Amino acid sequence: METQLFPKGEQAPADYFVGMAWVKSLVPADAIWNTSIAHVSFEPGSRNNWHQHSGGQILIVTSGTCFFQEKGKPKQIYKAGEVIKIAPGVMHWHAASADAAMTHLAVNTNTQKGLVDWMEKVTDEEYES
Amino acid sequence: METQLFPKGEQAPADYFVGMAWVKSLVPADAIWNTSIAHVSFEPGSRNNWHQHSGGQILIVTSGTCFFQEKGKPKQIYKAGEVIKIAPGVMHWHAASADAAMTHLAVNTNTQKGLVDWMEKVTDEEYES
Repeated sequence: METQLFPKGEQAPADYFVGMAWVKSLVPADAIWNTSIAHVSFEPGSRNNWHQHSGGQILIVTSGTCFFQEKGKPKQIYKAGEVIKIAPGVMHWHAASADAAMTHLAVNTNTQKGLVDWMEKVTDEEYES
Repeated sequence: METQLFPKGEQAPADYFVGMAWVKSLVPADAIWNTSIAHVSFEPGSRNNWHQHSGGQILIVTSGTCFFQEKGKPKQIYKAGEVIKIAPGVMHWHAASADAAMTHLAVNTNTQKGLVDWMEKVTDEEYES
């Protein structure tokens, strides 16, 4: 893959993130493919809120180190090239590590079942756990 | 994105390709996400056969220049960072240009409806058209 393959895109909505992140939409959801795809850039230390996808989601880390946690499980760490599969309805968050930016492709699957439901912010204690 | 994000993977089946290509499976199809994802590397001049996906497909070109043709339409050219959406049932092929390797992510959508049906090889006349 090439560096800087995608533009940074639009600022992620502050209501659903702590810190700065950027979203480049590549494929909007529709009724034919039932899939949406975006490339998301997290600045160091930034994270999204707890949330769930009713149709599930697949993340592909494209640079940096991805922090990831599912409700009730320990935080996990993924590196560039690795894949994270999040089952429908599973509450989770993702984030950059504190010292480096992180980017991932976000593939929302089965979008006919819903896209995303945002919940509360991830605390520093959860992020650093 | 980082260069060489994914390993080259396994050789693509010679029955369905002209020239050499490589497939790194990232996500196998299953009944939860209904999606499969692979990173495909085409050596210069290589192409896959005419084929169709009953659930549709989304390609994201990650390096090089992608030749793409749908049955009954002129060949089109896509570059790194661009997205190709192929509707269910539409016969098509994809390829590297003659002078450079090409890689793309291949996202098969709605895989509960089928993965791929392979047809005849792409002729030199079609490839060069």
